[in-house]
Amino acid sequence: MILFSEAIGIIESQAVMPGTETVELHDCAGRVLAEDIFSDIDMPPFNKSAMDGFACRRKDLGEELVVIETVKAGDIPALRVGPGRCTRIMTGGKVPEGADCVIMVEHTEPAGSNRIRFTGSGTAGNIAFRGEDLKKGELALPGGCLIKPQHVAVLASAGCDNPVVFVRPRVAVITTGDEIIEPGTTPSGTFIRNSNGAQLTAQVKSMGVVADYRGIVKDTPGATASAIKDALESSDMVVITGGVSAGDFDFVPGALRSVGVDLFFDKVAVKPGRPTVFGRRGDVFVFGLPGNPVSSFTIFELLVKPLLYRMMGHDYQPPVLRLPIGTDYSRKKADRIAWIPVVLNHHGEVLPAEYHGSAHIHSLTGAFGLMPAEPGVYEFKKGERVDVRQI
Amino acid sequence: MILFSEAIGIIESQAVMPGTETVELHDCAGRVLAEDIFSDIDMPPFNKSAMDGFACRRKDLGEELVVIETVKAGDIPALRVGPGRCTRIMTGGKVPEGADCVIMVEHTEPAGSNRIRFTGSGTAGNIAFRGEDLKKGELALPGGCLIKPQHVAVLASAGCDNPVVFVRPRVAVITTGDEIIEPGTTPSGTFIRNSNGAQLTAQVKSMGVVADYRGIVKDTPGATASAIKDALESSDMVVITGGVSAGDFDFVPGALRSVGVDLFFDKVAVKPGRPTVFGRRGDVFVFGLPGNPVSSFTIFELLVKPLLYRMMGHDYQPPVLRLPIGTDYSRKKADRIAWIPVVLNHHGEVLPAEYHGSAHIHSLTGAFGLMPAEPGVYEFKKGERVDVRQI
Repeated sequence: MILFSEAIGIIESQAVMPGTETVELHDCAGRVLAEDIFSDIDMPPFNKSAMDGFACRRKDLGEELVVIETVKAGDIPALRVGPGRCTRIMTGGKVPEGADCVIMVEHTEPAGSNRIRFTGSGTAGNIAFRGEDLKKGELALPGGCLIKPQHVAVLASAGCDNPVVFVRPRVAVITTGDEIIEPGTTPSGTFIRNSNGAQLTAQVKSMGVVADYRGIVKDTPGATASAIKDALESSDMVVITGGVSAGDFDFVPGALRSVGVDLFFDKVAVKPGRPTVFGRRGDVFVFGLPGNPVSSFTIFELLVKPLLYRMMGHDYQPPVLRLPIGTDYSRKKADRIAWIPVVLNHHGEVLPAEYHGSAHIHSLTGAFGLMPAEPGVYEFKKGERVDVRQI
Repeated sequence: MILFSEAIGIIESQAVMPGTETVELHDCAGRVLAEDIFSDIDMPPFNKSAMDGFACRRKDLGEELVVIETVKAGDIPALRVGPGRCTRIMTGGKVPEGADCVIMVEHTEPAGSNRIRFTGSGTAGNIAFRGEDLKKGELALPGGCLIKPQHVAVLASAGCDNPVVFVRPRVAVITTGDEIIEPGTTPSGTFIRNSNGAQLTAQVKSMGVVADYRGIVKDTPGATASAIKDALESSDMVVITGGVSAGDFDFVPGALRSVGVDLFFDKVAVKPGRPTVFGRRGDVFVFGLPGNPVSSFTIFELLVKPLLYRMMGHDYQPPVLRLPIGTDYSRKKADRIAWIPVVLNHHGEVLPAEYHGSAHIHSLTGAFGLMPAEPGVYEFKKGERVDVRQI
């Protein structure tokens, strides 16, 4: 058994080498940028009015101003703004030569034919200066960025309409167990419905990764090895649930070895999820996850997801949320790190979710995140700030 | 101009009536459940061992125990556990009649041929009792739930392999402006690249909603009205950016009225995003968003997204995150609610992002969320807890 931090270290030390492809700008959100993007223009590209109003000289603000021209967005101003003059300008319009400020239309009043006066109530300024956001040649967005909608705007502005992104990995999902049946059937006797297959498939897909659900495998060494062998051929990662405990019918570690997978660990000091197996054959990674659905979900979030992001070319750093706990919490044993499902209340505090153990899928239904209790930590006091990994 | 809270109220009061459809369990994550799901079985369906170990009677824990049978997951135990006896049991196995606890294999030692002894070091128990998570007929998942991977496990366990979900709305995205060109071209003179079209399309798609990007429309009343009219025919919502200010060439509000859209408001006391237009024609909603990309992004998050979720059948309640601010913050004017982009530092504190104004798309690049400063609130002091809407 290795420490949870050691398991993280082993996973982080794996070299990965994702390929790249080009996608349309409108389809790139959720993908990972594979190249640094530099702006090919100044942003903004000219001194731009941020308001509807009048462009003039700051030193003329006390005077009546003659309106010499109207400039809307897209127009090139024809006239220079001289003393006692102004140009009517729309939001996004280019500020004419000679003007050094814009006054909002709401802060002016008419002063006879084709003249206006600043009322003095607002602020003169309202110009976005050329290059103030980003200069031509500067880094607009770094390679490795997981593209969110707000990054799409940056790519568009920088002229990157066909970004190069990393190829998405393909993940095979396998469930093991003689007692497991697919959800469409009503279980009799000692049969149990397969919740892990669909849950893991959804976890994989929600990352924008390609999921390949490959069904339920019987608990024999031969069937297990054969299913893993097939999956290894067509995948970048194989995730298999069940069959990883110390029980007599847990064939996954042996089956993995028999098809040439090097195992880095097969037991981790973490709760839930102790019987977690991790290995590699060539460029293909393999996780064996516990059959209990809360364990499987949790270990996917904590160990599988960061590696999948790295295989997508992204260095995943979950946000550091430190939130107050709304109640006292204690545990009897503190030999392992525990990851406890928590809900978020209306005061922004976390509370441990009702939790009957690692088969209790309902504990995650309303959960906001997972709270780690480190080894040696027996309790949290109400009001204390705790770490939360959002799920 | 109406208050931001009034705008929220107007949007929330709109009646929506989404249709439903059936999807595969493996494709339902990100959709909204359209019916309450009740469990058709007890969960777990029988008393189940949570560990690999031995099932026995608690009162016999001090004695040597004869192993009478081995039960793995899926087996039906043949023998009743009587005094001085135990059954070897695997994780997920059905606990035999007579036994009231399971002791982990790690907490036992051999005691001669086919006998074991409890070492006393661990806890006896380790049984998940029939129906302890959910009883047959109880609500497993409520209609209106936005399905996350952990909900997929619940649906699977409840036997719901083809959930009924709400139909996804279709959103048309239109950009206006004579000065706007698509990102593939290098802008000359006073032209500006279209960042809103791709950004809004990505925002819509990231919600699992169908986006229909319809290009750039010229700044004439006729072209604007014509584009809106076409979009209304084939969409559940039309989102149009630019052309909503008080400028002479802002034709969107007039064009909307001319094609029969009832406008509920056309100016909101919020920063950024004051010139926001909202209306409805029949069952189709229309938003006119400011042309500045930060304003457009922000108003989408604050006003458009909640309505889109309601059109998907989901009552969207963003998590209440109350985080400490890592620096003093002040503003000169506090007449409107402001939503300020913030980053999250390694101590779990938020800091205002560098922000040059509502055209400064880079302010959102590394932002974790938006922090509201309510009307009348001029400052936050370092250490104070502030609300954060995650983006």
